[in-house]
Amino acid sequence: MTGKDHAAIVALLAARRWAALATRDGAGDPVASRVAYAVAPDGTGLLLHLSRLAAHTRNLEGHPRVSLVVSQGDDGRTDPQTLARLSIAADARLIDSHEACYEGARRRYVARLPAAEARFGFADFGLYLLTPRGARWVGGFARARSLQASSLGVLLRDFNG
Amino acid sequence: MTGKDHAAIVALLAARRWAALATRDGAGDPVASRVAYAVAPDGTGLLLHLSRLAAHTRNLEGHPRVSLVVSQGDDGRTDPQTLARLSIAADARLIDSHEACYEGARRRYVARLPAAEARFGFADFGLYLLTPRGARWVGGFARARSLQASSLGVLLRDFNG
Repeated sequence: MTGKDHAAIVALLAARRWAALATRDGAGDPVASRVAYAVAPDGTGLLLHLSRLAAHTRNLEGHPRVSLVVSQGDDGRTDPQTLARLSIAADARLIDSHEACYEGARRRYVARLPAAEARFGFADFGLYLLTPRGARWVGGFARARSLQASSLGVLLRDFNG
Repeated sequence: MTGKDHAAIVALLAARRWAALATRDGAGDPVASRVAYAVAPDGTGLLLHLSRLAAHTRNLEGHPRVSLVVSQGDDGRTDPQTLARLSIAADARLIDSHEACYEGARRRYVARLPAAEARFGFADFGLYLLTPRGARWVGGFARARSLQASSLGVLLRDFNG
């Protein structure tokens, strides 16, 4: 990965908070939904705070291999094909509130998404970690490249300076 | 569906052009990507113009049951959970350029996404129709409801006045 791609991906993940999630339902079909995300404090992955009442949460509990796409926003004039986007293939797991990493992850998530704080008191919500298996970066029209989990790990750790 | 929901869904689909697509890859895992969309002239579904070189296109050729989510944009301040979003479960198929509906669909797509016109001359691009099987509408936090294909059909035909 070039330094320019690396910087563009870090900037994209930092600028956005609202991604799309692909999960697999009980029939084996893909389901697209929207989720807010934050980057885990240790850079090991992305954090989602999800209600167990939502279909995507039941889907990822049943099939933890998911995919998350983060994209530049469309201004309604630019050719959308030129917008940068990153699709991350990941393994999802619930972080138990007794785990050592839970409190730091919760704080990071709430710092990014303050309105979520109240929902941490709701019994149906859980904090999930998405550990990347790899990613596909499209920096613009016909400018695509694949990233290994190790490259993405280096990049996510850059959120911690 | 209430008249208010109906109007909000029509307004959302009309205001946005850039959706997220969930497809299923050869290993059976869900993959999230981004795609531009338009509504078919007869309201039978949504139109995507995709390159066969892209992974999501190969995925939907292999497994035509896909899902598309359209969402309000995040302004970086509002709680993202309050943003309206519509997830549509659909069957995807390539529209052959010899089909009667092709030219009208192409014109509709280009009217919505003018920069796509040149790509209609590229051999690797094809126009796909996504016929809805049903949808999930989230009008805001904890305001979710399921829509049948027939309700969605009524709604999509509203694009034609």
